Amino acid sequence: MNSVTIILAFAFLAILTAVVYALKVTRIQIGTEGGKDNESKKLIEISSAISEGAMAFLVREYKTISLFIAFMAVLIFFLLDNPETPDFNDGLFTAIAFVAGALISCLSGFIGMKIATIGNVRTAQAAKTSMTKAFRVAFDSGAVMGFGLVGLAVSGMIGLFLLYTHLFQNVGTLYLMEALAGFGLGGSAVALFGRVGGGIYTKAADVGADLVGKVEKGIPEDDPRNPATIADNVGDNVGDVAGMGADLFGSCAEATCAALVIGATATALSGNTDALLYPLLISAFGIPASLLTSFIASVKEGGNVEKVLKIQLWVSTLLVGAIMYFVTDKYMVDSFEIAGKTIGKWNVFISLVVGLFSGMFIGLITEYYTSHSYKPVREVVEASKTGAATNIIYGLALGYQSSVVPVVLLVITIVTANILAGMYGIAIAALGMISTIAIGLTIDAYGPVSDNAGGIAEMAELGKEVRNRTDTLDAAGNTTAAIGKGFAIGSAALTSLALFAAFITRTKTSGLDILNAEVFGGLLFGAMLPFVFTAMTMKSVGKAAVDMVEEVRKQFREIPGIMEGKAKPDYKRCVDISTTAALREMILPGLLVLLTPIVVGYLFGIKSLAGVLAGALVAGVVLAISSANSGGGWDNAKKYIEKAAGGKGSDQHKAAVVGDTVGDPLKDTSGPSINILIKLMAITSLVFAEFFVQHGGLLLRLFQ
Amino acid sequence: MNSVTIILAFAFLAILTAVVYALKVTRIQIGTEGGKDNESKKLIEISSAISEGAMAFLVREYKTISLFIAFMAVLIFFLLDNPETPDFNDGLFTAIAFVAGALISCLSGFIGMKIATIGNVRTAQAAKTSMTKAFRVAFDSGAVMGFGLVGLAVSGMIGLFLLYTHLFQNVGTLYLMEALAGFGLGGSAVALFGRVGGGIYTKAADVGADLVGKVEKGIPEDDPRNPATIADNVGDNVGDVAGMGADLFGSCAEATCAALVIGATATALSGNTDALLYPLLISAFGIPASLLTSFIASVKEGGNVEKVLKIQLWVSTLLVGAIMYFVTDKYMVDSFEIAGKTIGKWNVFISLVVGLFSGMFIGLITEYYTSHSYKPVREVVEASKTGAATNIIYGLALGYQSSVVPVVLLVITIVTANILAGMYGIAIAALGMISTIAIGLTIDAYGPVSDNAGGIAEMAELGKEVRNRTDTLDAAGNTTAAIGKGFAIGSAALTSLALFAAFITRTKTSGLDILNAEVFGGLLFGAMLPFVFTAMTMKSVGKAAVDMVEEVRKQFREIPGIMEGKAKPDYKRCVDISTTAALREMILPGLLVLLTPIVVGYLFGIKSLAGVLAGALVAGVVLAISSANSGGGWDNAKKYIEKAAGGKGSDQHKAAVVGDTVGDPLKDTSGPSINILIKLMAITSLVFAEFFVQHGGLLLRLFQ
Repeated sequence: MNSVTIILAFAFLAILTAVVYALKVTRIQIGTEGGKDNESKKLIEISSAISEGAMAFLVREYKTISLFIAFMAVLIFFLLDNPETPDFNDGLFTAIAFVAGALISCLSGFIGMKIATIGNVRTAQAAKTSMTKAFRVAFDSGAVMGFGLVGLAVSGMIGLFLLYTHLFQNVGTLYLMEALAGFGLGGSAVALFGRVGGGIYTKAADVGADLVGKVEKGIPEDDPRNPATIADNVGDNVGDVAGMGADLFGSCAEATCAALVIGATATALSGNTDALLYPLLISAFGIPASLLTSFIASVKEGGNVEKVLKIQLWVSTLLVGAIMYFVTDKYMVDSFEIAGKTIGKWNVFISLVVGLFSGMFIGLITEYYTSHSYKPVREVVEASKTGAATNIIYGLALGYQSSVVPVVLLVITIVTANILAGMYGIAIAALGMISTIAIGLTIDAYGPVSDNAGGIAEMAELGKEVRNRTDTLDAAGNTTAAIGKGFAIGSAALTSLALFAAFITRTKTSGLDILNAEVFGGLLFGAMLPFVFTAMTMKSVGKAAVDMVEEVRKQFREIPGIMEGKAKPDYKRCVDISTTAALREMILPGLLVLLTPIVVGYLFGIKSLAGVLAGALVAGVVLAISSANSGGGWDNAKKYIEKAAGGKGSDQHKAAVVGDTVGDPLKDTSGPSINILIKLMAITSLVFAEFFVQHGGLLLRLFQ
Repeated sequence: MNSVTIILAFAFLAILTAVVYALKVTRIQIGTEGGKDNESKKLIEISSAISEGAMAFLVREYKTISLFIAFMAVLIFFLLDNPETPDFNDGLFTAIAFVAGALISCLSGFIGMKIATIGNVRTAQAAKTSMTKAFRVAFDSGAVMGFGLVGLAVSGMIGLFLLYTHLFQNVGTLYLMEALAGFGLGGSAVALFGRVGGGIYTKAADVGADLVGKVEKGIPEDDPRNPATIADNVGDNVGDVAGMGADLFGSCAEATCAALVIGATATALSGNTDALLYPLLISAFGIPASLLTSFIASVKEGGNVEKVLKIQLWVSTLLVGAIMYFVTDKYMVDSFEIAGKTIGKWNVFISLVVGLFSGMFIGLITEYYTSHSYKPVREVVEASKTGAATNIIYGLALGYQSSVVPVVLLVITIVTANILAGMYGIAIAALGMISTIAIGLTIDAYGPVSDNAGGIAEMAELGKEVRNRTDTLDAAGNTTAAIGKGFAIGSAALTSLALFAAFITRTKTSGLDILNAEVFGGLLFGAMLPFVFTAMTMKSVGKAAVDMVEEVRKQFREIPGIMEGKAKPDYKRCVDISTTAALREMILPGLLVLLTPIVVGYLFGIKSLAGVLAGALVAGVVLAISSANSGGGWDNAKKYIEKAAGGKGSDQHKAAVVGDTVGDPLKDTSGPSINILIKLMAITSLVFAEFFVQHGGLLLRLFQ
């Protein structure tokens, strides 16, 4: 079979899997006795509120995003015109790929959200029967997102590839692949707003709900009397399902585009479709590997959920590694040449394997730094005894320190892949790292579903045993979420580097000497961007949270009987506030990211832009890892104190709550958004490469 | 007059000025009636305790440092041997220069400390009479440090220059300048331990004194009943006088060395001593300019101290700029050639001016972000109303955001200087930025002297009016300290870049393409170093503070009558604890900084090392600025709340105290230490350049 057939077949398999799992979850009836009893009514009522809130946000978010998409599409159309391809309208076809990428990313997010808000209540209900059933419902819901997203991403790319190569048989493959890169940009642009907007939404709701509900009123988390509780549960979906999904969709699409563009510069690859499409084969073969793995996901009552999830990651990783050995042998050409370097097929394979495993290890080290089973979090627990200040100091230090091993692993991956297979190797390593994305996303989406299930169980008063089961599911989700964040950052780093390399290859730039003042100036400027971006998003969460706090306080004050449970709070109003704040606050950081590369490239030229990309990349990776792990560490330090140290209400716990609140925007808004920052700037540069070649460096030319 | 004579003359002038000011301060008698009254006895007793503590620390610190110096000297001697200079023992003469730099830096620190601990009590006493007198005593004490240090630095460098050029007339100037670079390394090595050790000392004492005294026991700052109060006052001297002095001594020596090495590669300069020594002329002519400026430093009762100090900076800046116009015209050759680029004398002059003024502006923007007169700190004040968490979030965001303008200014400086005068221009810009160092250091050292004077006035119970005067002096010192930190970071960035350029010039490395995997891997690894270093130093302060807290608590518990003021606390024990902790904790971060370049260069070669230097530089600059300004912002937010918002004891104030405590190690230990990190790694690379050329890249060679 040729690679196109296989890719199409596996993309279809992924979508089919998603549909089957979706039907499996949706078929579960809510409530007993036809949903007429009181408990069932409550379940339906609460879950509908969450689902409506989530959809309302998504619809409004997509409206805002569509404006940006239209604006960017026009920009692409008018700015791009390569004189070397007179028969091919570069701007138009890049814009088409861009819009396709954006639409498919939106669609993936929509599907993920839909199933997550269907699965949450059904998980809660299943938890009434058994752990085994509840786990499977949550896992299946996640799988819809995981497989659906990969299926759509692969379908989109292979579809566009077939369309363009069929329509323009006289146009060089490289130019077609460049136009295809618009797909990655589209996916990533949606991810930007998904991550930033979603991140602001979820944390504003979370902080608002906690500050008034838990701290001021002393009522438990997810208490139905808290007006922000629905918004909080909506937020889990908005941030961790739609945001994370869009992020990884972006990584997958971008890394593939980078590999295709770099690969197309090699004659041996551009002339051999099977070998050229090797990058897509990686994602495609990840699908059956993930599917096989998903069959063994099962938890017994009282079983170790975390272990089951980690086994999923290990098995899928090993499977992909093994399968790709044969795939490489069959579809890759024996050797090809890029930038004067001869690259053998096994070099490509080893690059893939290095990326695959370094992703695993980055995940594991992330767990070491953020789980309360190990020393780093225990130190934060200890430091909380002397107050909030020492809790913050140790938490910040934890994050900073946690960057060492992931950075070293990334450096090893980069250097090894580069020695073996040049910049193509780095793109392949990035794809290797996310080749198990279907399982990875399944587990990621499993987290918020379980979290929501717990919230619904609490609000519908399903009883202590049910809540215990959902808590166990949720706790495992927290650990794997940390692992997932590690993956996301690592793959973002490699993807950006690959895109960056494709950009440089494309613009035929040389003399990117680190001591060239334009390059170095760019480097310094770029290193500052992740910090500013973090500052902006942190403050946005702060502002949005203040809006929420005021609304919740107002409702407690103005709605009589709310604390006694006699009157219903106005959940919708809170959902609305989070939505409005998130959409308002995502604009400025969004513009910063989208416009910086275009402005820098236009005014200061390609060398400066290259510096900016590299600077933002290296500083961003370290800051993103630090932010995510500081936040994770604070969160788990607090949980440990609740469980095994001072306990709730102790001074030690109060100190830990401060750290947890600081960590929330860092780990769920700013940190993950940096992934997008670095990837999006790199792919924007790649897509606009031709524009910079023709018109870049306006300002510097004036002085020279 | 030739340049050597002028440099010698002005170095002498600086030392003479220092001696005159020293005599002026020392001549002031402590107390009235021959020092026999009760108040005088108290003054003498307290100030002796501070002075003894400071000297005890310095002696022990220098003992530890001397071991490192000996170790490094041996390393230099054995590792360096350039086959191109058979008549010249590179290792030996670099080691000699290294030891000379280290000794002179130690001597400068010693003098600064000595006069600061003489001036503090005399300032307190003068404050009994008038503001004018008190200001002048503090200023004069600072001037001893400022002029003494510059005089010694310039003397040391010109002395070694004359010695080496006289002894080895057959050896090329470039090789001699390289040996001279050892001087910069020596100064910087001492600065490392001064900044790290001093920073840990001062914050351990500060946090320890505050946590038990202010928070637990509710007694005021600098209360004589607090056992850690002497250690706290010693700390101000150790960190802000000796540490800051060593840091700027390092910048001055290193920037000069970088300029000399780069300049020596131009035939037109190496053949013309006047022009070759242009870098030293900048520092030399800064001396009379600073001296003239210092004459107009005067404050009336109720006058605006801050304005007087800022005028000092402006006047000296303008004076140096004007003087250097004529100096450039007279001593610089019309044009010379470096790396194939022809550079005119006015290009050099403009580079200097750009550096000079960008330093001023970096200082001013630092003030904007850290003074409570402006919006950023007011936002932190506002955020403190909703608790410690929001205080921390806004403070972190403030720091991150504050890096934008300094980074842009640095980029403009780098690009302009480079366009005009290549890498030589960047070294000259660095020297321009610190050409007013004599005044800059005077003002920096003025700060802790005033701070100490306040402490002494409190402990000796000199009355409210006296304390008000010293508080006014101290407050102005806090603002200028922020400006000083901005300068220090900016000059460190330019200095490192110049050293980096000298290193690359020296090793004749080409192909430092940003996309080369060794370079990029280094870049990513380097970007992580400032974060790890920050984590290490923050935790060190935490550990040392815990030791101190335990000791203070123990004394309050075990010494009866201490709270009633009937029994004297054991001050010495606290001083000893801070000293031991600081010396213990400075070793590990010190080794990290000193050994990283040597290990990376030896194992992975020059390209990787270049990447590491650049990565550490760009990420370090942003992190250092952020850390310093977050800390400054938190500090002043707390002060503003005490003065004009919620007031002491309010919830808002409690939240602000958390931020202030977190900010302390960030702004006074970790942030400033990053300056040294980036400079020291760069100069280590430069000094060991020949070693890397001969033996570097061991590990990579195995695989290639």
